[in-house]
Amino acid sequence: TQQLLSGRALRPKPFRVTNADRGVKKGIMAETLEDLMNKVSFSLTLECVSALVLDEDGTGVDTEEFFQTLPENTVLMVLEKGQKWTPHPNSPSRYQHIE
Amino acid sequence: TQQLLSGRALRPKPFRVTNADRGVKKGIMAETLEDLMNKVSFSLTLECVSALVLDEDGTGVDTEEFFQTLPENTVLMVLEKGQKWTPHPNSPSRYQHIE
Repeated sequence: TQQLLSGRALRPKPFRVTNADRGVKKGIMAETLEDLMNKVSFSLTLECVSALVLDEDGTGVDTEEFFQTLPENTVLMVLEKGQKWTPHPNSPSRYQHIE
Repeated sequence: TQQLLSGRALRPKPFRVTNADRGVKKGIMAETLEDLMNKVSFSLTLECVSALVLDEDGTGVDTEEFFQTLPENTVLMVLEKGQKWTPHPNSPSRYQHIE
């Protein structure tokens, strides 16, 4: 990962990380995906984080490269073993946007 | 493919790739269609990718040229042999947008 990112100036960005039932959400600063994963476990007191997905549509954030494209304050959901992303209960699908 | 694109400055773009039943979606960075196809097989642990289509309307993405026109974070669906694109179960058609 370090080789991959060398030459690129990294700076910590703010993210908002929620748990699978959206009962808790924390603001966390992180420079890299690994950094965020470590901080998430600590901040949300989780033992075994299995995946990090976009809260918006459940897209899995597995690679450092994709992680680096996320804008500041992206809302991420952390999943533990056996947990799955579910859409927001009160959100219409993206095809039903009311503007 | 390389000859085709020489002279053009390529940079990896983020895509969101889902499987045929939309049960898994992954964020993947790719520079070219070929690059994405390779990463998709690995990321979604598929054995035989037969096609890549737009999640939105099932449009087949067969050529590098068309692929290069897709904006960042386009949602693509990967199909294995025998699988077909289906519309989102809860989405009205694009003719029913509420704005």
